[in-house]
Amino acid sequence: MLTLVGLGLWDEKGISLTGLDEVKKADTAYAELYTGIWKGSIENLEKMSGKAVKILKRSDLEDHSGSLMEEAQSKNVCLLVPGDPLAATTHADLILQARKAGIETRVIHSSSVFTAVAESGLQLYKFGKTATIPLMEKTGNVLPQSVYDTIKGNLSLGLHTLLLLDIDVENGKNLGVKDALRVLDKLDADGILTDKKIIIMSKLGSAEQKIKYGSMEDLLKIDFGLPAVLVIPGKLHFAEEEVLETFKTQIKEKL
Amino acid sequence: MLTLVGLGLWDEKGISLTGLDEVKKADTAYAELYTGIWKGSIENLEKMSGKAVKILKRSDLEDHSGSLMEEAQSKNVCLLVPGDPLAATTHADLILQARKAGIETRVIHSSSVFTAVAESGLQLYKFGKTATIPLMEKTGNVLPQSVYDTIKGNLSLGLHTLLLLDIDVENGKNLGVKDALRVLDKLDADGILTDKKIIIMSKLGSAEQKIKYGSMEDLLKIDFGLPAVLVIPGKLHFAEEEVLETFKTQIKEKL
Repeated sequence: MLTLVGLGLWDEKGISLTGLDEVKKADTAYAELYTGIWKGSIENLEKMSGKAVKILKRSDLEDHSGSLMEEAQSKNVCLLVPGDPLAATTHADLILQARKAGIETRVIHSSSVFTAVAESGLQLYKFGKTATIPLMEKTGNVLPQSVYDTIKGNLSLGLHTLLLLDIDVENGKNLGVKDALRVLDKLDADGILTDKKIIIMSKLGSAEQKIKYGSMEDLLKIDFGLPAVLVIPGKLHFAEEEVLETFKTQIKEKL
Repeated sequence: MLTLVGLGLWDEKGISLTGLDEVKKADTAYAELYTGIWKGSIENLEKMSGKAVKILKRSDLEDHSGSLMEEAQSKNVCLLVPGDPLAATTHADLILQARKAGIETRVIHSSSVFTAVAESGLQLYKFGKTATIPLMEKTGNVLPQSVYDTIKGNLSLGLHTLLLLDIDVENGKNLGVKDALRVLDKLDADGILTDKKIIIMSKLGSAEQKIKYGSMEDLLKIDFGLPAVLVIPGKLHFAEEEVLETFKTQIKEKL
């Protein structure tokens, strides 16, 4: 049996009680920490669960998943992953591989930036397609036109756009907020973002979380840290606007 | 201080460790169970947290939130809510009220159907706007045209649509899957759903969860139970299709 357990947002306490129970019951427990920036301690997870947790690399899951599958044929194998497990395409693929091999699977869900983004005041049901702003060194400095198309498509329906930032945790290269803003600015050939205020949310789910709403220019002056996401608001309902106002970059006090 | 704590999917073990810690630290703990169908036990939550948990009604939060706000001015007040707290508009409004009154707020996130829906194999980033199919007695039997417009808008961009089912937990009237399918069928003036296979997912996050992919006609023959959601797939990637195939209504074996 293969059980994917979501670690949720931020640290080792983002896991659900069901998730922790699954780790306790597992014959073997693994964790991957490359599909999201996770600030927890594997040591603490081991103490809480009483299980040794071995960290797997991207290559263990994407190129050499065979040994994991083989183990899951006869044992209860738990794989801990940041956020909610199936937000990352890799894990949907693992589940499919397992099911094809006749291995029972289960997913224990947890918190995710896909819903935590509602802390901005924007209503979840009004989000459109999500895009990821890539690391420019990965694209050979070619601008990610599809990100811009996603924003435009969503705006045409009045929908909000969640923009994730590309990460390369294993090589310590994660796209920062300022670089992401610069990519957006370069992409904006049609000027749709020129007078638009956007939202940046960092370290969601932690006591250090920061949410700011303002022009690109104003946002570039703020240090956010990672993990972070950007949101391009679509058509705003007055209730959404009212919350956003409290996150304006001009407001200096901590709310 | 007002802390909203997500109960996550299904039962009392869907809460995160951070969430349970917050309940333990709270001066007063409340729960509301009308914004989602939740299968947990408040008694068990009380045992785990060592705190009495008082259940609030819709009217306590939507019409008479004054006493909750007053209490949160001087005490640590925890409000437990099904799923991830801010998926429900009511709670975004509570947070805003509190912040306006100078009350510190925090949200402890948890699992939500908005991301658990990825168990279908559909990729989260390709979901468009979400709609809720209303209880027809609430609309006076007027068909919810906006639901159809949402599906059409999403399909025009190739996006998937998550359809939530209206609930009225306090009065024991929740929209069932079959009635929801009938509403969809009546709405389909343009025939966009006639040859389309759709997805039904029920009891997500539990051992009893059921996921089926098929024509409306085939899906009408299956009993799902609640909570449940419907998904109208947009343009499918072959990897998405591969997972969906395993949920086909024709397949009789448990996968």
